[in-house]
Amino acid sequence: MENKTTPVTLDKVYKAAQVLKPIIRETDMILAPNLREDANVYLKTENLQVTGSFKVRGAYFKISQLSQEEKKNGVIACSAGNHAQGVALAATKSGIKSLICLPDGAPISKVEATKRYGAEVCLVKGVYDDAYNKAIQLKDEKGYSFIHPFNDPDVIAGQGTIGLEIMNQLPNADTVVVPIGGGGLIAGVAYTIKQLNPSCKIYGVQANGAPSMEKSIHDGQIETLEEVQTIADGIKVKTPGNLTYEMVKTYVDEIVTVSDDEIALAILTLLEQQKLIAEGAGAVSVAAVLAGKIPDISGKNVCCLVSGGNIDVTILSRVIERGLKMSGRTANITIALSDKPGQLSGVSSIVASLGGNVTSVNYDSTDLDMNITDCYLKIGIETRDYAHIVAIKKALTENGFVVCDK
Amino acid sequence: MENKTTPVTLDKVYKAAQVLKPIIRETDMILAPNLREDANVYLKTENLQVTGSFKVRGAYFKISQLSQEEKKNGVIACSAGNHAQGVALAATKSGIKSLICLPDGAPISKVEATKRYGAEVCLVKGVYDDAYNKAIQLKDEKGYSFIHPFNDPDVIAGQGTIGLEIMNQLPNADTVVVPIGGGGLIAGVAYTIKQLNPSCKIYGVQANGAPSMEKSIHDGQIETLEEVQTIADGIKVKTPGNLTYEMVKTYVDEIVTVSDDEIALAILTLLEQQKLIAEGAGAVSVAAVLAGKIPDISGKNVCCLVSGGNIDVTILSRVIERGLKMSGRTANITIALSDKPGQLSGVSSIVASLGGNVTSVNYDSTDLDMNITDCYLKIGIETRDYAHIVAIKKALTENGFVVCDK
Repeated sequence: MENKTTPVTLDKVYKAAQVLKPIIRETDMILAPNLREDANVYLKTENLQVTGSFKVRGAYFKISQLSQEEKKNGVIACSAGNHAQGVALAATKSGIKSLICLPDGAPISKVEATKRYGAEVCLVKGVYDDAYNKAIQLKDEKGYSFIHPFNDPDVIAGQGTIGLEIMNQLPNADTVVVPIGGGGLIAGVAYTIKQLNPSCKIYGVQANGAPSMEKSIHDGQIETLEEVQTIADGIKVKTPGNLTYEMVKTYVDEIVTVSDDEIALAILTLLEQQKLIAEGAGAVSVAAVLAGKIPDISGKNVCCLVSGGNIDVTILSRVIERGLKMSGRTANITIALSDKPGQLSGVSSIVASLGGNVTSVNYDSTDLDMNITDCYLKIGIETRDYAHIVAIKKALTENGFVVCDK
Repeated sequence: MENKTTPVTLDKVYKAAQVLKPIIRETDMILAPNLREDANVYLKTENLQVTGSFKVRGAYFKISQLSQEEKKNGVIACSAGNHAQGVALAATKSGIKSLICLPDGAPISKVEATKRYGAEVCLVKGVYDDAYNKAIQLKDEKGYSFIHPFNDPDVIAGQGTIGLEIMNQLPNADTVVVPIGGGGLIAGVAYTIKQLNPSCKIYGVQANGAPSMEKSIHDGQIETLEEVQTIADGIKVKTPGNLTYEMVKTYVDEIVTVSDDEIALAILTLLEQQKLIAEGAGAVSVAAVLAGKIPDISGKNVCCLVSGGNIDVTILSRVIERGLKMSGRTANITIALSDKPGQLSGVSSIVASLGGNVTSVNYDSTDLDMNITDCYLKIGIETRDYAHIVAIKKALTENGFVVCDK
């Protein structure tokens, strides 16, 4: 029965699955044995979905439900990310026109991808809100249908098809962990799974720099955040939708948050252990599991929804560096030296004898705090873990070198 | 019938598939629509295999065929890469001991991964050949069974199971493209596919810095290369096996080679377009298709076997940079300036007006070729493609700046 809290029905989700069949991939469910020793963690790999994220599901189903008249006028959307690409491809596959408004600061790669999927792109001076206002204005002027990124029953039903696939691929799932931005994905997935298996727990994950849904649920009313800041730009949403808010309140067991560092480590872990590229928003589910934020998973079958993989490669490089540092796999050590021969050789032989791999060396003798004949030696090292770093610093100290880092 | 050129039978491959069923993943076959406009390119994603490469297939089947006595003594192998991890996991899953000899310069990440899969690791001073000799010596002394990385009928049959999966997942494949190192993978895959569908073309790909099989087939005899050099270290093999050589001669249609730059671009393309991490050796099949090395694929169903994803993250960072440069997505431009105010502002506003994104700026006034008041301005820019770079240089020149790069 449709009512205020369930604008989506299971019928509608099944219908969406049927409509989507020729368009989307049934993405693989992959066991990730190295993520946790105490639980069976599986990844639902929507980063391997067409367009690199789940967004095409909701967009295509929404478009399929438009009238002939509406289709003729084409669709409009506002997004700098996955929704843009999802709507672009969905419209092209439906044989209709799409116009995507993007803020003019959007990365070149995203603009190009959106065009490649067949959309016309309208670059709007300013930030997201300016692009959004322009899209609404154009919709009113030209009669386009506006495709909302999350707060729409058809969009939610489209995303809900992932819930059907999860229940099919991992029928004995105990826990499903889902990223939350505006809430469209988790609303669809949680609703669908709770209909089919009410005992399966559903956890939502937000970035701790953009916890709009978490705060709204906590406060019992929809809240708007003044400022949002996270590397997971795909879930950087200031206000949840009213439909998604109601559905999350009803069907989601708990919402947890993760930090940017936890997200970076999750991206690196997926890359190294699973050979998968996830974007920040896509990796928050894994971040929450890795960081022990999801309660009671010992011995359980846990499914992490990896919702997307559209990360800018330059950001990826920085994330790799951050993740390596976070996990003690690289370290920078600063040593105060008197400027005489043989010092570097002494340091590097100690590092080598302990199995560390020196990757960079820098001398700095311009610091005003020291004698003019002294200098700082800064070395970058590849290490195994934190214990390894501690052992190397200890050996250096024991050999008479002054290590400046604690 | 088994004979000199076919030590492998289809029976044996089917048996291997049965034995491997509970151990390995049937990796997904993924359509990659953006790789070529003129062909349907699919990826057989063995980078998503357990241990991150196909190697576990051959290793596990080989071990399953050992006698109880041999199993009791354990197995030994020599490898710094995928074979080490494959043997380690295969032995652990078989409940037997494994000892892996690695050269002591092997990356920490590979050593740690091998240990994590349950192997004992023996670090041998020197290079691969030294580790190999040590392994043979230990095998003779201690009675271990030596697991060859490619020149073994059981190992080849294990890799051949990928051929069964390809025929099952993409029955109408016209062309299958497979990396070649020692030749174990392609021997098994080509043999299997040619038995089931003789009209399917099989292409092998080697790095042009390590073309041992290509040269051997060309010369009509097994050749040993003096030196091998490529970023695709998983296929950096000096001499093919005699079994694999004979099978490649019989079942492979043609061998092509690709450059390190072509491999880097393939890795970047897989990462950006498909959200998949491939190592150099795993990406050569895609490199060959992207670079137009595989003949007659227009309108065809082409399967690229992506054989592994175990790439060191620090190398990955460098590959990303190289690939971006290769495809005109980043550029460094050097401009000779007279050292007066406002010059940087002039340059950067021209770049910005054309949609380029400045990511780094360097002044260099120490070059001995120039006036002491002049300097070089080196800027790094994010660009769309080569045409974009040309347009930016042209605009700078037209505005009176001296661009030093051609």
